[in-house]
Amino acid sequence: MSTPTLQQIASHAKTYGFLYNSSEIYQGLQAVYDYGPYGVQLKKNLQDFWWYSMTQLHHNIVGLDAAILMAPAVWEASGHLAGFHDWMVDNKDSKKRYRVDLLLEEQAAKWKLAGQEQEAIQLSKKMDDFLSKEDGDGLTSLLQESHVVCPISKTAHWTKVKRFNLMFRTEIGSVANEATKIYLRPETAQGIFVNFLNVQKSTRLQIPFGIAQIGKAFRNEIIARQFIFRMREFEQMEMQFFVPPEEEQAWFDHWVAKRKAWYSTLGIPKEAIRIHPHTQLAHYAKAAVDITYRYPFGYKEVEGIHARGCFDLQSHANHSGKQIKYFDTSRNASYIPHVVETSVGTDRLLLLLLCHAFTQTTKDNTPRTYLKFPPPLAPTSAAILPLFKKEPLIKQAQAILKQLQPHFRVAYDQSQSIGKRYVRQDLIGTPYCITVDYETLEDQQVTIRERDTMTQQRMPIGRLKDYLKEQLHLERLISN
Amino acid sequence: MSTPTLQQIASHAKTYGFLYNSSEIYQGLQAVYDYGPYGVQLKKNLQDFWWYSMTQLHHNIVGLDAAILMAPAVWEASGHLAGFHDWMVDNKDSKKRYRVDLLLEEQAAKWKLAGQEQEAIQLSKKMDDFLSKEDGDGLTSLLQESHVVCPISKTAHWTKVKRFNLMFRTEIGSVANEATKIYLRPETAQGIFVNFLNVQKSTRLQIPFGIAQIGKAFRNEIIARQFIFRMREFEQMEMQFFVPPEEEQAWFDHWVAKRKAWYSTLGIPKEAIRIHPHTQLAHYAKAAVDITYRYPFGYKEVEGIHARGCFDLQSHANHSGKQIKYFDTSRNASYIPHVVETSVGTDRLLLLLLCHAFTQTTKDNTPRTYLKFPPPLAPTSAAILPLFKKEPLIKQAQAILKQLQPHFRVAYDQSQSIGKRYVRQDLIGTPYCITVDYETLEDQQVTIRERDTMTQQRMPIGRLKDYLKEQLHLERLISN
Repeated sequence: MSTPTLQQIASHAKTYGFLYNSSEIYQGLQAVYDYGPYGVQLKKNLQDFWWYSMTQLHHNIVGLDAAILMAPAVWEASGHLAGFHDWMVDNKDSKKRYRVDLLLEEQAAKWKLAGQEQEAIQLSKKMDDFLSKEDGDGLTSLLQESHVVCPISKTAHWTKVKRFNLMFRTEIGSVANEATKIYLRPETAQGIFVNFLNVQKSTRLQIPFGIAQIGKAFRNEIIARQFIFRMREFEQMEMQFFVPPEEEQAWFDHWVAKRKAWYSTLGIPKEAIRIHPHTQLAHYAKAAVDITYRYPFGYKEVEGIHARGCFDLQSHANHSGKQIKYFDTSRNASYIPHVVETSVGTDRLLLLLLCHAFTQTTKDNTPRTYLKFPPPLAPTSAAILPLFKKEPLIKQAQAILKQLQPHFRVAYDQSQSIGKRYVRQDLIGTPYCITVDYETLEDQQVTIRERDTMTQQRMPIGRLKDYLKEQLHLERLISN
Repeated sequence: MSTPTLQQIASHAKTYGFLYNSSEIYQGLQAVYDYGPYGVQLKKNLQDFWWYSMTQLHHNIVGLDAAILMAPAVWEASGHLAGFHDWMVDNKDSKKRYRVDLLLEEQAAKWKLAGQEQEAIQLSKKMDDFLSKEDGDGLTSLLQESHVVCPISKTAHWTKVKRFNLMFRTEIGSVANEATKIYLRPETAQGIFVNFLNVQKSTRLQIPFGIAQIGKAFRNEIIARQFIFRMREFEQMEMQFFVPPEEEQAWFDHWVAKRKAWYSTLGIPKEAIRIHPHTQLAHYAKAAVDITYRYPFGYKEVEGIHARGCFDLQSHANHSGKQIKYFDTSRNASYIPHVVETSVGTDRLLLLLLCHAFTQTTKDNTPRTYLKFPPPLAPTSAAILPLFKKEPLIKQAQAILKQLQPHFRVAYDQSQSIGKRYVRQDLIGTPYCITVDYETLEDQQVTIRERDTMTQQRMPIGRLKDYLKEQLHLERLISN
């Protein structure tokens, strides 16, 4: 059993209806993907399970769904207008454009490999300094003095380094000269912060409490790659937890532990998940870790947990002129709450589950591929299959279909041989296949085949509903 | 019991955490709204129920989730780049901008009221002709000859009539001079059409089959109003059903009947729903009806059902140069499938449910307001309330909370008097309140209060789970 490559997984996802390139018939749109039938259901199941874990199981966490379009002032307050950019440079010979930080990091890595440890450290240090500057002069010089060359032209014939804001810009309003420049949100978090007062007032929740949100965000990434790992249109599942200032560290630790444990409920082995503390903190953060997963391209972030202090609420209070405070009756004191953020990339989580589920084995000298999704999360829960395409079997199978349909996501397939149909359900990760044969017509029993073990057992039709309910309930995951 | 106004409903929705103006602390963004805690859960419940009704209950309908960002060629093929616009005119004195069709319709209505029936009909007819023209000259003349005046300046001092495209435009890609102009999708349907081949191939579904999708769309509406009825960012729930050409009319009739009946499962009375056939058909449509609901501002569209012929698939085939055909084994023939579309405005559906649920009565001379959501769709299913804020009652109530939480959306509230807490749950539409009192500690029974009737009954704690399961299952709605 070898570890699958990202390419294998992407190709499987495309062929079997999980993900397609967006606008594919028009040559596609780079770094944008559409979810196909099995992909959208898998995504919905993951979102529902996250929502269940984060809102239903906590009486002090409520939901929110803020719009993608927000007033431009939001992005002034959050710092995105001034600071959400990449530093770019063009090579004059190849006409190719690069992210400067990536070029420099690569150079440092080369030096390190070549034994020039000290020079590499110096380079990284200088780069970090220059990246936070207002202009690109330092980076322009650093590129030259480090002798970085273009991977294509092999020359160091660079333009000046320039900033490039990652937010998508558009205009709202009908009168061209009065139209307001607005941005597609580059993160969902701000929708929660600007609604803090509204939510607190209309729910009367007392601190500590949380606001959870699932929604899309957009970043005009310069170099977007690794399938759905970095997309220009992507989805976040975030929960912002509001706490008394002095409890921020304790709640941060609490949520790091809690969120890490959540991946076990998905069946992900402990060694495939690592906590990666940030060494460099963003301007808003007091503490931050990534929850990383062992993707085919290395341990990479699937979720971020950040102690954001009161940066956001304070900043929105300053920019809006509104007072954003909370009166804590238990302390008889008023303060700006501090925030612990847990933020999952939905698409990255789905990719994680695809990577984890993708299994290639050999059984009786025959290679076999299947997706071992946890049964409650599989796109299709069970497939009903008449053994042959014969009237009485079809009729019986369709009666079972009608019976199970209100309760489970069931598929029906009567084409080709039974073996081929099993293989097909394996490839989309269906945990149970229910086969109707001639004996069924006599004894009202069916064969139920389990995906991972391929074991088959006979079961009365009347027991199917209860059996599947036991296996497929979301609550089952929580008790993992 | 009087009919509530839209303003009453909007105000209730704001105060009780269903909907907020987007970016409200920054004076808001016109015609964009954020869903608050109870709004987002109600929306999710409605989406889940639609998804359940349209995908799970049909083995030949699958889901899709296409990206908001699509290749610009999609909008050339669909006709949106050329034809998705409003005709606008400015009054030179008041400096106000108007939609020409609305100005002319108003004039026709005035004439009709004044008994000038023939003139009104003539005006409407001419307008319809001119609206489909390439330039605004006809409309410019028509405005003048009909003596339409600005409602503010009262003058007929108009500019020339001009077209205004309703799509939001942005740019993708990092190199400014190579950046591609793209659009936020103005409808979700095209994502389904461009993926028709992908979906058919990866699911092997045979015609007739459907593709369902829930997602956001954006229209830079000139005059957006009526709360969430017409927003610039909104959500659609669509199903495109692909059929053999000669069966289009029969399937259209099928889906009109089926979708109309769906509103009964939500508990909407038959007389509040009307089918409104289109007299004027869009360029793509062979037949079309609106399903309208009796909103406070009249019977207006909540869902549209359209027989789209093969317009979209044919057009994408022409523009992309790809063959989009289906080989029908049962007919041994190849054809471009025809399409029947059912398209619900999610936000309009939520507004429908709010309007339907909003109830004001008087009981024992006390006025009472509550939201009579169908129990399975209510944002909160049950509230657990200790009668007094006393340690043993709190402990018992929280034990019940923990017990029910994995199975239901339960709230917990221990503040204020029990009467006030009942009122509060009524205002957000919680169907059941479970009260823990001192007797509970002895007999392990609680009081369960039903929202609409306010009847109370004692029930053993051990029976709560089964009782609530019976009342709250989605399947319950289907059997309505």
